[in-house]
Amino acid sequence: MQKVFAMTFDPATLLFNEAGLIPCIAQEDSSGEVLMMAWMNAAAVMRTLESGRVTYWSRSRQAFWVKGESSGHVQELVELRLDCDRDCLLAVVRQTGPACHTNRRSCFYTALRDGQEVELMAPEG
Amino acid sequence: MQKVFAMTFDPATLLFNEAGLIPCIAQEDSSGEVLMMAWMNAAAVMRTLESGRVTYWSRSRQAFWVKGESSGHVQELVELRLDCDRDCLLAVVRQTGPACHTNRRSCFYTALRDGQEVELMAPEG
Repeated sequence: MQKVFAMTFDPATLLFNEAGLIPCIAQEDSSGEVLMMAWMNAAAVMRTLESGRVTYWSRSRQAFWVKGESSGHVQELVELRLDCDRDCLLAVVRQTGPACHTNRRSCFYTALRDGQEVELMAPEG
Repeated sequence: MQKVFAMTFDPATLLFNEAGLIPCIAQEDSSGEVLMMAWMNAAAVMRTLESGRVTYWSRSRQAFWVKGESSGHVQELVELRLDCDRDCLLAVVRQTGPACHTNRRSCFYTALRDGQEVELMAPEG
């Protein structure tokens, strides 16, 4: 998805934390499954909107992180949403392959049930 | 939901930020809708698990925030999950009434479409 449009939305109107970052939740469009949460800076928000490829800011590498760039497990942006406080984003995506670096569909594969950690899904293929 | 069980899960094994907080995404169990994101400290995590009522930590008030305590718009916990990095939580909930303080079902009621902000849902009755 490469879009050409007049962008009037200004990412500077979002509320970033003291590190200049805003959390972004990725949700699979087709299933509603919550896949992961990662961080964006203002430039990553713009890159995501302009390229249609969800692009985070890697806090460990201090670099842009085009999701799936090395793994092929890309996130095609369906729609970016923001919350009432403008301090959290929700990216509705089409996820190719597993979203998690452990090769599981979602990063939220551990549930707490009766005080125990229970694994909800196994790594894919 | 008041549960009695031997809790072996230790919230100290979660990764909290420098303020001692971890983000928690709330998702409606029945629809999969992402409702909101707020923060918990270790004690709020334990209160949520023990009471079955989702309990955040209010950064502005610096106090526990039992969701819906004043509004009645409570979040009954169905399941608490944690992500691969143990630095983000996902609360699957049954939400009574709107989750958002603007009286909308979800806090993520604004979408960015073609560079414009579009409102996806109106406040409820």
